[in-house]
Amino acid sequence: MVEKKEENQQQKQKTEIPHSLLKTVEWLDDSNRVRMIDQTKLPSKLVYVEYDDYQDVANAIRTLVVRGAPAIGVSGAFGLALAALKSDAQTKEDLLNDLEKAKKVLFETRPTAVNLKWGLDKVMETAKKDTQENSSSSDDVESIKQTVLTTAKQIAEDDVKTNMSMGKFGSELFDDNDTIMTHCNAGALATVAYGTALGVIRATKDAGKNIKVIATETRPVQQGSRLTAFELKHDGIDVSLIPDTAVGYSMSKGLANKVVVGADRVLKTGHVFNKIGTYQVATMAKQHRIPFYVAAPLSTFDMTSTPDDVIIEMRKAEEVTGEGERRTAPDDINVINPAFDMTPPELISGIITEKGIIKPPYEENIKKLFQAN
Amino acid sequence: MVEKKEENQQQKQKTEIPHSLLKTVEWLDDSNRVRMIDQTKLPSKLVYVEYDDYQDVANAIRTLVVRGAPAIGVSGAFGLALAALKSDAQTKEDLLNDLEKAKKVLFETRPTAVNLKWGLDKVMETAKKDTQENSSSSDDVESIKQTVLTTAKQIAEDDVKTNMSMGKFGSELFDDNDTIMTHCNAGALATVAYGTALGVIRATKDAGKNIKVIATETRPVQQGSRLTAFELKHDGIDVSLIPDTAVGYSMSKGLANKVVVGADRVLKTGHVFNKIGTYQVATMAKQHRIPFYVAAPLSTFDMTSTPDDVIIEMRKAEEVTGEGERRTAPDDINVINPAFDMTPPELISGIITEKGIIKPPYEENIKKLFQAN
Repeated sequence: MVEKKEENQQQKQKTEIPHSLLKTVEWLDDSNRVRMIDQTKLPSKLVYVEYDDYQDVANAIRTLVVRGAPAIGVSGAFGLALAALKSDAQTKEDLLNDLEKAKKVLFETRPTAVNLKWGLDKVMETAKKDTQENSSSSDDVESIKQTVLTTAKQIAEDDVKTNMSMGKFGSELFDDNDTIMTHCNAGALATVAYGTALGVIRATKDAGKNIKVIATETRPVQQGSRLTAFELKHDGIDVSLIPDTAVGYSMSKGLANKVVVGADRVLKTGHVFNKIGTYQVATMAKQHRIPFYVAAPLSTFDMTSTPDDVIIEMRKAEEVTGEGERRTAPDDINVINPAFDMTPPELISGIITEKGIIKPPYEENIKKLFQAN
Repeated sequence: MVEKKEENQQQKQKTEIPHSLLKTVEWLDDSNRVRMIDQTKLPSKLVYVEYDDYQDVANAIRTLVVRGAPAIGVSGAFGLALAALKSDAQTKEDLLNDLEKAKKVLFETRPTAVNLKWGLDKVMETAKKDTQENSSSSDDVESIKQTVLTTAKQIAEDDVKTNMSMGKFGSELFDDNDTIMTHCNAGALATVAYGTALGVIRATKDAGKNIKVIATETRPVQQGSRLTAFELKHDGIDVSLIPDTAVGYSMSKGLANKVVVGADRVLKTGHVFNKIGTYQVATMAKQHRIPFYVAAPLSTFDMTSTPDDVIIEMRKAEEVTGEGERRTAPDDINVINPAFDMTPPELISGIITEKGIIKPPYEENIKKLFQAN
């Protein structure tokens, strides 16, 4: 009951969204559309795009208009809602078939982030449950469509609640005058709002602690400079940008004393899949005895896969060789461009979740946390 | 005497410059000018620029038209030669004053690379020696000018010889089917021709060994993609490009089994100052038990400084935040942009010089090598 009460408080907090005016992804009730910030246009322009077709949402996920594990989980769920509303199926079976088709397209956009699968599965589950419980009139088709939409909207609301709760737990790990390094963007722009790793940073500041942030550029797509630096500056948090090559330098000079990053997938063994480069940030932190924290909601946990099971998404060469007319590499050069890497548990000081902080030994403590929730 | 013979062979080889048609910096006897490849235009265009004023050479060094420790050492020496030829001094003292003035301007362009100081000092030394040996007629002023020019040209020739010798020693460290990771550009484009780290790679290939290379992009200035990928592809060596964030991934997946980099300064203790990011490449190599080699001519060694003495050059924010119209970071963002970092000796498997390979313990073995040469 105590936990329930906490959730209610978070619910109340949520409606305010204390810092960020940025709403990364949201459902527009008036038009039954999904609205997103087009993150490929940042930091130069703050542009919103609206979609009424799931194929466009899939394309938005694929082209990084929206990115960040929690945000694409919610986007996938909204994509299914669009597919449901647009379906002209007359029977429950046909509607489910349409949804399965849409799910496949949406899922294949980004294979590594577990939240996408999680969001899609959660929506499909409620749709199927609703199907079984109802008879097969066209009224029921409408009812299932509404169930799909309600579930997707609930996932989006829960995301903000989850981030607020992670912030509350995580802020206890950080002290006055800390300089916190972060990699990539696990911020408002990676979620519906507030953020996971940056949500923890926001909550730490809200707790009255004076903190600074060092953001890595995060090549090749530069989410650190384009997004993290943008949203922290937007919120008035002291942020300095470094190239990815200056992680070791910054730590060796004492410029950062803690690290917090997000996660795209956490295994039951504590192995963390996150943006390419996370592994070397974690290794450098260990080398300098700097605590390295991961902020990951429970929806990010994959309790079945082993490290070898996880497919690391390889992205196209053009992300590395240049942008538009601007070429920084010779033509037809071979490129290795993985989107993610794996950080082993021995480099991780703690995993911040919405249910508390998980400390080593991870396999044991992750299991306990899941059994309790 | 044997060594002399070797040098002669190298001298003969040198005139051929077996691989690269790229001559990074050279003296044009016809016009008494310095000619350089404008490296800021690579990889899109191969543009040569010519200078007849030392101020322009200083500016070229400052703006990275020419970069790489050995190349800027030679460029500095050629800059002094231009200052000498253009001086209207009537006395040896006035000429020396003009040279000292030019030396100061040239030296202040890049404070970290020890070769620049080394090249400038070497030219000044011979100029001063010549001054002491001669009387003060205007004939002698001409003679000193010629001495300065001859010395500068000798430094350029020696650079190629040195690289060839380093290549010969270094190639013994690499085996058939190795994939060698390198960071930044310690290639033909960092030297007069051939290269230090890439000279070793060229020599390994010339020795009949089948090798591949992984080049890191090397943000912020992208010397890895713009220069290393360019010159290795130009020479038909199998090269793949990775973002700097993918060093750990590549090593963890067994995609690279050795590393070789150049150096901007090597201390008597074996501490290596090189392009920002080298320290984390070395740390990741250690983590994966991958040998990490440094290729550095003796002119790169600083036998007096301690790690704390070395000034790390901080470069401007614009290198990180965007290029021209293209902005990748919000306006007025704080940026930390160091040009170099320090790799401690315990991460280094060997230092390849033109006189042989130095193995740990470095302090002892560097001392021995310098006493013997």
